[in-house]
Parts: sequence; C-alpha cells; structure tokens
Amino acid sequence: MVKFIFFDIDDTLYSSSELSKKARRAAVEHMIAKGLELEVDEAYQKLMRVVKRYGSNYGQHFDRFFTDELGREPDYRLIAAGVIAYHHTKFVNIRPYPHTVETAVELKVRGYGLGIITDGIPVKQWEKLVRLGLDDLFDPVVISGDRDVGFSKPDRRIFETALSKAGIGPEEAAMVGDKIGSDIAGANKVGMRTVWFLTPRDPKDLPLSTGIHPDHIITDMTQLLDLFP
Amino acid sequence: MVKFIFFDIDDTLYSSSELSKKARRAAVEHMIAKGLELEVDEAYQKLMRVVKRYGSNYGQHFDRFFTDELGREPDYRLIAAGVIAYHHTKFVNIRPYPHTVETAVELKVRGYGLGIITDGIPVKQWEKLVRLGLDDLFDPVVISGDRDVGFSKPDRRIFETALSKAGIGPEEAAMVGDKIGSDIAGANKVGMRTVWFLTPRDPKDLPLSTGIHPDHIITDMTQLLDLFP
Repeated sequence: MVKFIFFDIDDTLYSSSELSKKARRAAVEHMIAKGLELEVDEAYQKLMRVVKRYGSNYGQHFDRFFTDELGREPDYRLIAAGVIAYHHTKFVNIRPYPHTVETAVELKVRGYGLGIITDGIPVKQWEKLVRLGLDDLFDPVVISGDRDVGFSKPDRRIFETALSKAGIGPEEAAMVGDKIGSDIAGANKVGMRTVWFLTPRDPKDLPLSTGIHPDHIITDMTQLLDLFP
Repeated sequence: MVKFIFFDIDDTLYSSSELSKKARRAAVEHMIAKGLELEVDEAYQKLMRVVKRYGSNYGQHFDRFFTDELGREPDYRLIAAGVIAYHHTKFVNIRPYPHTVETAVELKVRGYGLGIITDGIPVKQWEKLVRLGLDDLFDPVVISGDRDVGFSKPDRRIFETALSKAGIGPEEAAMVGDKIGSDIAGANKVGMRTVWFLTPRDPKDLPLSTGIHPDHIITDMTQLLDLFP
C-alpha cells in the first residue's frame, strides 16, 4: 500500500517549459529594444538552437547566441539586458500548477509522506521549491546533482536513494512526473507505482508508442486525491 | 583641455558596498528564517569572512559559508533562500547616487564625452549599468575582463586602452573614481586628470597617507559641473 508519494519538479509542480519560453522571448525582446537587429521570432529560434545544442543548464547561452548564431563577438550590453529580462520574467511568473498546494496539503493530512525526485543542480532545484513556496512540504528532496546521489532519472539508483532516505520499500511508494522516459520508466523499473502527469504540451499517445506504461494518468493534481484516498 | 570624462562604476555611480551589505544581511536573515541556528550578526560576520577569503566575484560564497564557517555540508534549501533574498535585495534597491544622471546628462550637453573604466566581469558590469539605467550614457565602456582589455586598475594599460578607444590623449581625459589605489593611482600614472569621489565610507585622510594625490576631490557628482564648465 502506498504510504509515500514522490514528485518531479519541472513541468510537474510548475510549468517550467512555458516559463522558460516566456523568459527567453522576453530576453530577445529586450535585446532587440537595446539595438539587436533581428526579428523576435528569428532571434528566439536562434536562442533555442543554442539551448538545444548546449543543454538548458549551460551558463553561457547568450554568449553562444552571438558567437555561434550571429558569428560575432558577444555584445555584453545586449546580453546584460537579455539576462535581466530573462530572470525578471522567471521570478515574477513562477507559480505552482493549479491545485498543487491544496492537493499536497490534503495528502499530508491523509498521512502520506511527500518527497521530491528531480534532476538538476541542488541550489537551482531548491531555488525553484523556495520560490514556489513548496520547500516546506517535501522531505526528502533528492536531486541528481546532490553529493550523495549522483545519478539522473531514469537510472534506478536515484529512485533507490529516495526510497532509502524515506525508509520505505518500492511497493509503498508512488512517483508522479511528466516525463515518460525518465519519471515513469525509472520508477517502473524499481517497482514504484507510477502516475503520469499529462501536461498540455505532451502528445497524448506517448505511453503506447514508447511501450512504457504508467499505472495512472492524471491531467490535474486533484486527481491524486482519488488515487490516494 | 579635458574633453572626455571616464567613470568607475562600483561605489562611484552607485553605492555598491552598501548595497552588498544590505543584500548579505537579507540573505542571512532569510537563511535564519528557514532554520539556520545563528544570530544575524554572527552569521553576517561569518559570511563576510568567506567573501574576504574568496573575493567578491567568487560564485560559491554560501557553500563555503557552510563548509568553512560551520564545518558541515552545504544545506541547499537554506542556500537557495539566501541567494533569492540576496538577489532580490540588489535588484530592488540598486539606483544611482544622487545627481548622477542629471550631472552626466549636463556634461554631455556641454560637449564632454563620457566613458567607463571598471574592473570586473563584462556581463556583470553591464548588468549594473543597465539596471541603473545608465547604459546609454557611456561609450566606450572598458571592463578589465573584456577580451580586448585583460588588465585591471591600477595597471596603466586599462587606462591606455580606454584612451585609445576614445581616440584621445591623456591630457584630454579625466578619471572619476572612489578608489585611491586603483582609480586615482592608475589614472595619475598615465597623465589623466583625476577626481577622487569621496564617499562616506572612505577615511578622509587616505590621499595624504598613501602619497597618491588626486587633482580634485568631490563629495557629490554635481561638483563635476564646476570642474568641467
């Protein structure tokens, strides 16, 4: 019987992809306002190519935007304007998905333990939880970049670390996440119950086409209250 | 005759030291609110020791606060709370010193060229200018970390680079800065006119005790309008 429910953070507790998109658009708009001679859509596409090429945790997307996409030296005045707009947009707009807080609190009232299993840099992932106002609700918080973790989803060892920290077996745990190939595939491997959180950006037929099957599919956090009475 | 006036940024265009102090106090207050068991003053002193030890541009002051000063593993939940408070305090409170903008504009109206000579990381220094709303007023902006600079004040080569970018000789240029050992000493060496901006935090007898003598001392930016009619 499930006693403990683990959650992914990005695109599970909040709309990470949409927020990044909005922030990157704001960044290119501000660079254009400062004199970058490109259309917004074109600049955005170029920036996205850089993000895809170097990964989202790379620290110098804007430098590479200039060197790789525009073939010239970084213009740090424009980059500064872009970076300011990017962070401002993220800080002002970050908030949990609807019903996340009330659902988490109700699950705790019902006696479930709540934890986090997420990939990323510890201080960055914690910053998201603090800004979302959710950092008091989850324990343990298991992050791939943690010194005592070191494995990313779907590696079974990050799930096993979380189970061990919570002091429970896999049959007592559920995993809620949006990424079929990492959240669901990894938690399935260790024998946790799996709940696929279907956000609007996901293609609806993905589980069938990948052969990875979650135990449950939800489209709103409140549906967890039916699954875990 | 002076045709071009160069400015330092930190503690010359805005109160960098006071702002950092305020931001670090906010950071430790928020870490304490999240459960750090220290008094504010004690925590602040420990953080300042780390800043002194590793320098102000080091990226992991808060990690070292835990490892060096508290002798334990970094607590990334507390660090995240501290980092958020630190940046929030800086972003909300950064503003130019009184009379900076009106003085700069009047100097331009009078026909002076205005530039920046500053030590630091290009994107960080530009971020300050953009947040201060001053990035349109200065050209050239010469930063020690720029790829085509590479020297910090008081090295004469950063001043020579600035003169060369402005297309003027040292006798046509003035340097305004708060740091006697870098701004004034360096600009003196190349033969620029030097204006020491005396902020409240500076000991008043420093020029005499160091043997470095600025041509002028000001305590408010508007005094530049008397020096450069």
